[in-house]
Amino acid sequence: MAEQTVGRIGVESLTRFCIEAMTRVGVSESDAKITADALVTTETWGVHTHGTKLLPGYIRRLKGGGLRVDNPPKVSSEGPSWALVDGGSSIGQVTSTFAMRKAMEKAKETGIGYAGVFNSCHFGAAGYYAWLAANENLIGLSMANDWPTVAAPGSRKAVTGSNPLAFAIPGGKADPIMLDISTGAVAGGKVYAAQKLGKPIPDNWIVGPDGLPTTDLTLFPDQAALQPMAGHKGYGLALLIEALSALLTGAAMTYSVGFWMKDDPSTHTNHGAAFLAIDVEAMTPLPNFFGRVEELVKEIHEAPKAEGSDRIYLPGEMECEKRRIALRDGIDLPEDVRMVLKEMADSLSLDFEELE
Amino acid sequence: MAEQTVGRIGVESLTRFCIEAMTRVGVSESDAKITADALVTTETWGVHTHGTKLLPGYIRRLKGGGLRVDNPPKVSSEGPSWALVDGGSSIGQVTSTFAMRKAMEKAKETGIGYAGVFNSCHFGAAGYYAWLAANENLIGLSMANDWPTVAAPGSRKAVTGSNPLAFAIPGGKADPIMLDISTGAVAGGKVYAAQKLGKPIPDNWIVGPDGLPTTDLTLFPDQAALQPMAGHKGYGLALLIEALSALLTGAAMTYSVGFWMKDDPSTHTNHGAAFLAIDVEAMTPLPNFFGRVEELVKEIHEAPKAEGSDRIYLPGEMECEKRRIALRDGIDLPEDVRMVLKEMADSLSLDFEELE
Repeated sequence: MAEQTVGRIGVESLTRFCIEAMTRVGVSESDAKITADALVTTETWGVHTHGTKLLPGYIRRLKGGGLRVDNPPKVSSEGPSWALVDGGSSIGQVTSTFAMRKAMEKAKETGIGYAGVFNSCHFGAAGYYAWLAANENLIGLSMANDWPTVAAPGSRKAVTGSNPLAFAIPGGKADPIMLDISTGAVAGGKVYAAQKLGKPIPDNWIVGPDGLPTTDLTLFPDQAALQPMAGHKGYGLALLIEALSALLTGAAMTYSVGFWMKDDPSTHTNHGAAFLAIDVEAMTPLPNFFGRVEELVKEIHEAPKAEGSDRIYLPGEMECEKRRIALRDGIDLPEDVRMVLKEMADSLSLDFEELE
Repeated sequence: MAEQTVGRIGVESLTRFCIEAMTRVGVSESDAKITADALVTTETWGVHTHGTKLLPGYIRRLKGGGLRVDNPPKVSSEGPSWALVDGGSSIGQVTSTFAMRKAMEKAKETGIGYAGVFNSCHFGAAGYYAWLAANENLIGLSMANDWPTVAAPGSRKAVTGSNPLAFAIPGGKADPIMLDISTGAVAGGKVYAAQKLGKPIPDNWIVGPDGLPTTDLTLFPDQAALQPMAGHKGYGLALLIEALSALLTGAAMTYSVGFWMKDDPSTHTNHGAAFLAIDVEAMTPLPNFFGRVEELVKEIHEAPKAEGSDRIYLPGEMECEKRRIALRDGIDLPEDVRMVLKEMADSLSLDFEELE
């Protein structure tokens, strides 16, 4: 089902629009650029649930003071291969970019680096930070906790966030191998998108107030929870992410994390996050590594196809293809994203129509 | 469905039996102890697919020379927070224990440690190595590649191994939070167990020779592949594991990995593996960390239960409970495990019956 769209929007044009929106509410030009790059890069991948659609919610918290513009992220403690980063309630993308770069710095010094984050907020697409690492020939991993929306096997309500996990493996001249997943059966953003667009959902996405599967998406999030990915497996991975993002860092856990979309916008959400980087070159010559990636990719591409399939994709391959098209022809923003951006533009006296 | 069993076997008694079997084919007492501890610990958790049942296959390769007893694992290269370990075709458990201890050593020095492994073999339950780290108050992660048994979305045959992933989070006086999963929809071991016991399987475990779901378990593994866990998510995670276990280490990849159960026992399988350890105490005082773990566990235990459920388990909680019973009352070995151990005992002129 193609989304209804009215022409594509250029990547630069959309980026300038996002920067302009943020600077109007007091964000510095440099922080606005970092955040816009994260949001618009995500749009170029076609991941519209985690792109510019998030901006109006961030603007609301920036206006309310829950997101601060005057308290930049800083390292609160560190060792040879790790750092804990106090986000200072800055925009999640600003803190997360800072932290991933710190993990990368540690990895370049020692081989592997971990940066844990507290006092952060929603960070958008986990994959963006992993991708930053892969762009410098490091393997990147990225994850965060969130306000609970996902049930555990046997629970009636949500017990963990949809705690995302992403990685990116550098491919040299080839595309990186990238994955960005929710540890819920689906991302909450997909349920919200279905609500906005009035689309039905299958019965393996959410559980209702009795803890049993339902297709009534109006129940989400107040009276329903997402199902965990692959049952106990997704539930377990969500707890690993909670451990690296919050148990270790001192960030808020589970229901203590602020609900960034709905809570009073003057409050700090205190999300946690974790970033890992591995310096490939420290361990093996890059040409060898890229040769092996190429061999793996070729083998998968050439594997026999299942009845009815004509192609096997590597993780991230579709996203990289969409990005090339977006960089050339502009981004095909879905109607629900256009709607919220238009509304935000009006409230900030910005012109969204002009972009089209 | 309870397995048919004939009395429990004491943990010490089963451990001695395993050590005796290995030393009869030339394994040193110390390597036999390491391997037996991994196998029997796994049994105490009730994970019978990855416990002593594996031993006859290892014995076969030890006799054939594919597993060496005279070439211990060693660090082939290292940096401040990483090491690559050449397993020297020693028993996978010996090499993996060596590598996890190396990752833990690096973590204690720098905060986080990575050890990648090549020239290894099947390593049993990934969770065992993560558990070793948690026992010393480190967060442990463990993973390995294997000969392909799992299809990708759209593939007709297997393209990745069932590449396991495990973690363990230390809980202080409380049980560790532990997860050990296959990135396939189920572990191959479960299909073999169903074959052995003549049990039916559901249609979401394997795909047949056309790449479509089937319940005909006799097709596995030659003409069938496991389905990936949660579709593209499990497929993607399997490739991350392939990257950390083999792309980085130089171990064999996908179909170049030996099929340890069926290949000529004189050949080396060259499995790869990867171990990560994070030193909790470097980043936060242990009592704070354990207090936060306790808070998280309490919150999950007390969460409202779904209709029909009376308890919400933490990952690893069932395994820890089974272990306490096993240490007290002995291990309740399923019939399929008893059968293969009895057969192995006969071939080595050992007495298995005596254990019961």
